[in-house]
Amino acid sequence: MNTYKHEVKYYECDRMGITHHSNYVRFMEEARVDYLDQLGYGFDRIEAEGVFSPVVSIQCNYKSPTTFKDIVDIEVAISIVSELKFEFNYVMRVGEKTVCIGQSLHCFTENGRPVALSKRLPELYKAIQSQQ
Amino acid sequence: MNTYKHEVKYYECDRMGITHHSNYVRFMEEARVDYLDQLGYGFDRIEAEGVFSPVVSIQCNYKSPTTFKDIVDIEVAISIVSELKFEFNYVMRVGEKTVCIGQSLHCFTENGRPVALSKRLPELYKAIQSQQ
Amino acid sequence: MNTYKHEVKYYECDRMGITHHSNYVRFMEEARVDYLDQLGYGFDRIEAEGVFSPVVSIQCNYKSPTTFKDIVDIEVAISIVSELKFEFNYVMRVGEKTVCIGQSLHCFTENGRPVALSKRLPELYKAIQSQQ
Amino acid sequence: MNTYKHEVKYYECDRMGITHHSNYVRFMEEARVDYLDQLGYGFDRIEAEGVFSPVVSIQCNYKSPTTFKDIVDIEVAISIVSELKFEFNYVMRVGEKTVCIGQSLHCFTENGRPVALSKRLPELYKAIQSQQ
Repeated sequence: MNTYKHEVKYYECDRMGITHHSNYVRFMEEARVDYLDQLGYGFDRIEAEGVFSPVVSIQCNYKSPTTFKDIVDIEVAISIVSELKFEFNYVMRVGEKTVCIGQSLHCFTENGRPVALSKRLPELYKAIQSQQ
Repeated sequence: MNTYKHEVKYYECDRMGITHHSNYVRFMEEARVDYLDQLGYGFDRIEAEGVFSPVVSIQCNYKSPTTFKDIVDIEVAISIVSELKFEFNYVMRVGEKTVCIGQSLHCFTENGRPVALSKRLPELYKAIQSQQ
Repeated sequence: MNTYKHEVKYYECDRMGITHHSNYVRFMEEARVDYLDQLGYGFDRIEAEGVFSPVVSIQCNYKSPTTFKDIVDIEVAISIVSELKFEFNYVMRVGEKTVCIGQSLHCFTENGRPVALSKRLPELYKAIQSQQ
Repeated sequence: MNTYKHEVKYYECDRMGITHHSNYVRFMEEARVDYLDQLGYGFDRIEAEGVFSPVVSIQCNYKSPTTFKDIVDIEVAISIVSELKFEFNYVMRVGEKTVCIGQSLHCFTENGRPVALSKRLPELYKAIQSQQ
């Protein structure tokens, strides 16, 4: 899988002159979207099936600030936690320096109810399994 | 009608230490939502009828910067431009100082097609008329 | 201490019709700013002393979605973790329902270097201690 | 000059399933930043000289909605309005379709006061002139 690159925008920086910490949560989503696209199973395809993938939890450990024009290079890994949940791990770097480590936990829902990925979207389930 | 107050958030300020200019467009939306609520015809009620109100155009003239913790006091006025369009005007002040003058033009759509407000939502049409 | 209230904005909701998960990180910042203001030691006062307070880590556990116009009521608690770090805990509710549980870890820096809160801003240190 | 491309992010879409209108103002900033970079005179270089470039006004005419994953292709043109002001024009397209037409007016300031671009940053002034 290719890493995902996000160039920090002017409007993403705050009064301290650094990327506002909330934006890393958005970078993680961008990287996740890209990862699933590379897997051949993008968000749009999932949503077209009537399935949504809400975020159960997120975590960010900020190691070093980034700023305007930095290219944040995001390495994504995925793991299946249970029938209902899967987890993304993110290592974000600028050059060689690790700037943020993130994690997000997800489930899948249909009509507001959790669904087992292995049954409802078996193809995606297999694709995720193959990446572990 | 009461004016709408938005207190500038830390994350709304940029590297120059001032409110990022894109955020005023969001303040305008907040003020518009509040205005329609005061009219008794909020966004949620409009959307519950299956009608959406896309923005046709917006304009902002920035008079003076604002920053973290400033209370932006927004005065809203509405006018009917045609059967299909209506316009909001916004004067934003911090204390006595005018900081931004905005304008937004809107239409109404149902299933992606424009609808005449006077026919589709006559009650809202009358409420808007009464404010001019 | 009073809880902090954030009314969910239209632009904070996503394609699923719910508050985008990244925004809770911003609500946490708003609540933290308000909490420090209530303590008598706001962000602006801290920054006026040349001290910044970067975020070391954040965590959100999403319990239930929220949407446009929901009033998210945020209860904040603070604890001192070490000479250099302190932690905020957030319980966010809509009515009686808990919608999100958050946590953020912070340090203080001056000219880019960590400073001991008890020495550099003893008054704030005491105010935080008194809340535990 | 090359056009600037912005791929619409999931978090940039709203409850109507379309790109929230406020985000185009951010796309315009991204395109402007890229344009000045291509001119050889980026924001970071301007700011490193102690000069800031606040936005005087912005305007957006929304022609057609865009959504998640659309590639918005932004063509930028620049014109000098006066000694103190210059203007950017933006045509945003998805494929052949024009989705938004934007305009932004800017000045330059140093220590909070307007400066004549031709005197304070003559190299940038000439570069802009050469593009008209």
